[in-house]
Amino acid sequence: MLNKVDEAGNIAEVMAEVGRRAKAAAAPLAIASTEQKNRALFAGADAVLASRDAILAANQLDLDNAAKAGMAASFIDRLKLDDKRLEAIAEGIRAIAALPDPVGEVIAAWDRPNGLHIERVRTPLGVIGVIYESRPNVTADAGALCLKAGNAVILRGGSDSIHSSQAIHKALVKGLEAGDLPVDAIQIVPVTDRAAVGEMLKGLDGAIDVIVPRGGKSLVARVQSEARVPVFAHLEGICHLYIDKTADLEMARKIALNAKMRRTGICGATETLLVDRAAAATHLVPVLDDLAASGCEIRASEEVKALYPSARLAEEADWSTEYLDAIISVKLVDGVGGAIAHIGQYSSHHTEAIIAEDADAVARFFNEIDSAILLHNASTQFADGGEFGMGAEIGIATGKMHARGPVGVEQLTSFKYCVRGNGQTRPV
Amino acid sequence: MLNKVDEAGNIAEVMAEVGRRAKAAAAPLAIASTEQKNRALFAGADAVLASRDAILAANQLDLDNAAKAGMAASFIDRLKLDDKRLEAIAEGIRAIAALPDPVGEVIAAWDRPNGLHIERVRTPLGVIGVIYESRPNVTADAGALCLKAGNAVILRGGSDSIHSSQAIHKALVKGLEAGDLPVDAIQIVPVTDRAAVGEMLKGLDGAIDVIVPRGGKSLVARVQSEARVPVFAHLEGICHLYIDKTADLEMARKIALNAKMRRTGICGATETLLVDRAAAATHLVPVLDDLAASGCEIRASEEVKALYPSARLAEEADWSTEYLDAIISVKLVDGVGGAIAHIGQYSSHHTEAIIAEDADAVARFFNEIDSAILLHNASTQFADGGEFGMGAEIGIATGKMHARGPVGVEQLTSFKYCVRGNGQTRPV
Repeated sequence: MLNKVDEAGNIAEVMAEVGRRAKAAAAPLAIASTEQKNRALFAGADAVLASRDAILAANQLDLDNAAKAGMAASFIDRLKLDDKRLEAIAEGIRAIAALPDPVGEVIAAWDRPNGLHIERVRTPLGVIGVIYESRPNVTADAGALCLKAGNAVILRGGSDSIHSSQAIHKALVKGLEAGDLPVDAIQIVPVTDRAAVGEMLKGLDGAIDVIVPRGGKSLVARVQSEARVPVFAHLEGICHLYIDKTADLEMARKIALNAKMRRTGICGATETLLVDRAAAATHLVPVLDDLAASGCEIRASEEVKALYPSARLAEEADWSTEYLDAIISVKLVDGVGGAIAHIGQYSSHHTEAIIAEDADAVARFFNEIDSAILLHNASTQFADGGEFGMGAEIGIATGKMHARGPVGVEQLTSFKYCVRGNGQTRPV
Repeated sequence: MLNKVDEAGNIAEVMAEVGRRAKAAAAPLAIASTEQKNRALFAGADAVLASRDAILAANQLDLDNAAKAGMAASFIDRLKLDDKRLEAIAEGIRAIAALPDPVGEVIAAWDRPNGLHIERVRTPLGVIGVIYESRPNVTADAGALCLKAGNAVILRGGSDSIHSSQAIHKALVKGLEAGDLPVDAIQIVPVTDRAAVGEMLKGLDGAIDVIVPRGGKSLVARVQSEARVPVFAHLEGICHLYIDKTADLEMARKIALNAKMRRTGICGATETLLVDRAAAATHLVPVLDDLAASGCEIRASEEVKALYPSARLAEEADWSTEYLDAIISVKLVDGVGGAIAHIGQYSSHHTEAIIAEDADAVARFFNEIDSAILLHNASTQFADGGEFGMGAEIGIATGKMHARGPVGVEQLTSFKYCVRGNGQTRPV
């Protein structure tokens, strides 16, 4: 690994070298055995625990700098590592090792009338660039996920966690050595200058196949607007919960409370509640009472405010706001058609849910809304790779190319066609 | 449809309007029934035949202009329409109508321990931009394929075929009307200025989801370097045929002749022949004799020339040249490992074939080469969506994102997750 940069003007050159190393590592990694990759992952997990003292000392440096810089307590909490968190990081790596190896999996197979047997077989994508904020655990998560899928990875973490990330990275490299894999399979960008991010977004001379940003809206927005390579990401999760007049009231209450309040800061949290006008007299008030009682602020359309006067009046901007907080916007709509129209106008195409007993309403909701995840009679907070049974995820994508929804190891792969014949030539 | 542009400065504006119309058409099209789409396609095929006189008159205009411009006979032949070609165009549209509708197909389904049932369901991609050269039939092929997959399409054909393409497009629009589908579902760019292509490559304000270039290397190169949206394409097909020492000689002769000479101008034609050094004494000369006898020029490495003196000596550039002609470059390699190394250095990641009886050699070839299509004991000329059983194809992609290999209706789709529960909330 490169360790320092002599001068700032060097950054493009340093990053190009990072790209070349990643590409060179990707080729042997693509054909590495499952056993080798798992050996590297388990050894990496062991090395994280064995490097406890070094990692915590590096983390203390980051914490001291953050304290000096007057960072918020919540920021410092996310940055802080301790024995429990190191154990969780090691467990996370082991859980990724335990996933089935996607590479080599036959996704589809069929025979042609001329006797050719065609298989579509999973392959690694190549080189993944991961750009994230100051969360040291992402270094391990993202590095392990990319490795499991046979991809080389270039990690660029927030500068405030650089010492912690470098220390964790060192442990992962020990794992690579134990698996006889190229040490450049997991690289960490050796410069903290933001220009390094710009170089990654340009793709490092074609070395990077896809960029995954992990972090807040401003990071994702920058990546999406500047990247010259494909990006797996979601800018925001303006998730909707629609309660149909045929909804079971108790189920609607339970799900609405969970969808909004279980964790308000995750992308799958509901931000807007749409209630069927025909259920205004029956469902609206009990659901809002539950939310208000749990500390949620209600921002209501005029109609809703008339029925629930303690609510604050919503402004137009509320319908396109991702609060990530204990706030919900609430509106009445004309049945499922009204819900579909509202969602079509304001959704970020992440996750939407319908509570209904009427199968036709559910069918329309599922058919006519084009978001990554649609749920029936379940909480929007299930929008998560782990909850989908994919194991770990590197994020959730709202684009329609290649990956959509949770991005796990399978979504970090491509495929090729392997065709077996016994002498077939193509007729003229 | 827009029919003319008042002034050149207008092009960005005209194209932005084309993009807005496509996006507006894509939403209803995405939820159109299979019956509606098929009705539109069959009616479009009928309209092509019913518009025979108008299409042939428009084609005559293009042919006259091409003759005046002194275009080559081969160019004029590709441009020319007649009754037989119109019948083939109509048949092509009907064949696409007869394909299974990919939209709504459940690609995967599984249950979670908490009772959630998850389905991954195919959806249209949205808006496809197709940029092609002066082949009027592509107007019908590409329009029909995109429609079948529920996508709106913006067609930009070569200016030399504009009258023919517009006349065919009119017939397709009659089909859309018969299917009660938005007429903007298939648009043809109303300006011939090349600046219109530049606007499409910028994505028309996010309206275009993917660009498909159909044409020669210079067109594809321009699209790949300038596009700010995803591209499904291959720049070139430098396809390799490797003959292992365990190859059946008669099979090797038959396949080599077919792979190179069946059609020399298609992307799946073999350009380089690699022969196992251990088979130089047995396989090389018979295979080269067949090729030479059929009129193929042999460009040989020094070693091969020593064994086959009538060959011309190859230059370094030959190993990375797509001849698209009756020319083949030939080299000896050290077994399958040597073939893999040569292909790794020179391949365009399109299609490679191995002739061998040794299963281990085949396994290595399939595992270690990362090209879109790999074949065992079969001709590289099978690299084709129709031969794969996909029905029509819009092209072959060598990128690793989303689509790879033949791009048929399935590859023109995305997917979403539909999750069914019965009241599940996510535990804290």
